Amino acid sequence: MMHFIFDVMGTIAFVISGVMVAMDKKLDLFGVFIIAFVTAVGGGTLRDLLIGSTPVLWLQDHTYLNIITGTVILSILLRSKKKYVRTSLFLFDSIGIGFYTLLGIAKGLSVGLSPVMCIALGTITASFGGVIRDILCNEIPVIFRKEIYATACIMGGVSFFLIRELPINELYADIATILIVIGIRLWAVKYKISLPNIYRSFNASE
Amino acid sequence: MMHFIFDVMGTIAFVISGVMVAMDKKLDLFGVFIIAFVTAVGGGTLRDLLIGSTPVLWLQDHTYLNIITGTVILSILLRSKKKYVRTSLFLFDSIGIGFYTLLGIAKGLSVGLSPVMCIALGTITASFGGVIRDILCNEIPVIFRKEIYATACIMGGVSFFLIRELPINELYADIATILIVIGIRLWAVKYKISLPNIYRSFNASE
Amino acid sequence: MMHFIFDVMGTIAFVISGVMVAMDKKLDLFGVFIIAFVTAVGGGTLRDLLIGSTPVLWLQDHTYLNIITGTVILSILLRSKKKYVRTSLFLFDSIGIGFYTLLGIAKGLSVGLSPVMCIALGTITASFGGVIRDILCNEIPVIFRKEIYATACIMGGVSFFLIRELPINELYADIATILIVIGIRLWAVKYKISLPNIYRSFNASE
Repeated sequence: MMHFIFDVMGTIAFVISGVMVAMDKKLDLFGVFIIAFVTAVGGGTLRDLLIGSTPVLWLQDHTYLNIITGTVILSILLRSKKKYVRTSLFLFDSIGIGFYTLLGIAKGLSVGLSPVMCIALGTITASFGGVIRDILCNEIPVIFRKEIYATACIMGGVSFFLIRELPINELYADIATILIVIGIRLWAVKYKISLPNIYRSFNASE
Repeated sequence: MMHFIFDVMGTIAFVISGVMVAMDKKLDLFGVFIIAFVTAVGGGTLRDLLIGSTPVLWLQDHTYLNIITGTVILSILLRSKKKYVRTSLFLFDSIGIGFYTLLGIAKGLSVGLSPVMCIALGTITASFGGVIRDILCNEIPVIFRKEIYATACIMGGVSFFLIRELPINELYADIATILIVIGIRLWAVKYKISLPNIYRSFNASE
Repeated sequence: MMHFIFDVMGTIAFVISGVMVAMDKKLDLFGVFIIAFVTAVGGGTLRDLLIGSTPVLWLQDHTYLNIITGTVILSILLRSKKKYVRTSLFLFDSIGIGFYTLLGIAKGLSVGLSPVMCIALGTITASFGGVIRDILCNEIPVIFRKEIYATACIMGGVSFFLIRELPINELYADIATILIVIGIRLWAVKYKISLPNIYRSFNASE
């Protein structure tokens, strides 16, 4: 039940991020809808294809289409002024990866994958929608930009399996994982934290 | 049986559209073949993956490969002069989405999807091949260009479910759907019809 | 057993090619890892999705992740000077397509596909990882560059089915196939062999 709510929250966050990027590119109404749709369902679809869970969920359950359509309409109506777009985009994208990382891990556990592969599946679930969004909109995929992105998903995933060992409620472990991913991502963007430079000695040797 | 003929017609139309875009990009013989192949089978492949119908049909039935190979060879031999390319491209691409929209809807019905999801599946089947073709050829995906594209598939799909309620032969409903999609698409391109602009008030508020 | 060794060899070769392209693009550590990973598992993943063999192997068997991680680390530590990158890239990419062509054919045979479709599956397995690598790194996909690429896989595949008819050990047929693909590819790059130009008469008619 809580996972369904997490799924709805993640979907809404990714739809908003998709609408922002698509409107920034001046796509028409349908283009905005498609980008929002692909951003929201892309990660979960790849996850379900990889583990062989078909037909994919959003084809069977109208809830996703309804939520996406409603959120697209609201996002377009309530759009804020352009200068806030970049900041808000990071915020909603980060919220989305938080929820989707957890959902990917949970799905991996449900089909008996090992913890390492659950974390990989969580990272794929969280990042693929944004990657497709950026490729279709001709942006450098968010996963390759300077700041920590997939690393936040991985660190959240590791935390999930550590926290699960503690004698606490499963729901708290879930929520902690979501917050850790979002927190690391926002913190990395705010302080421009990136992975160590592997080119320094490389360049020096030229 | 008729669906098989529709599939062959759609495949031929998409192959021709793929050859045109690929030759416009001066790809070599094999590049032209690959783009034609991907354009023709891309939409159906994604549809079959999403609903879990594997191995995908073209791996099991040589008819597709034969038709694609034959059409590529004929298209290259009979290619018209370059100035007609753009017009013909729109024509063949539109014929392709007409047939594939219907086939996607039919496949959705056969696995028990709701009408709304059948229409979504039809739209994906019709548009994905062209999207891949354009991404591989470094063009803006046709689905994001100004004129109505996916909207034509959706309107055709809605018509399909309305016409089916009438006391007419199923075959006529199928053919009507195909013609509606092609008609809307050609009409939109001819008169440069596009979706309403959602940026006017947005820009005014800046 | 030998197929597992071939798989490991192909994986290592593709990881090195992925690291080279990603480092050439100055991606950060994680970006380099992702490109290497996608290059190595992309072809096999698409193959398994198309034939419906899920969950895909690398989600179930940690060997792949371990080999990829180890090879990425070694490649970064042992990276050669930049001027050798282009040559080495061709070498490792060619080794990779040799092994993966054979593995794709073998997988196709194991699910009962016809020889023609086995060769198609082998070509897809061999080329898709490199195509994704190049799209993500914003390079023209290797398959569309001037020299023979997929054609080498196809010729290797045809050879495989011819050699199999001979009264020799199956292992030798496998190794011969791998060497034929690698040989044709290296030979085509060295002597800049490309497919016949299909535009000459086309241009003349303008």
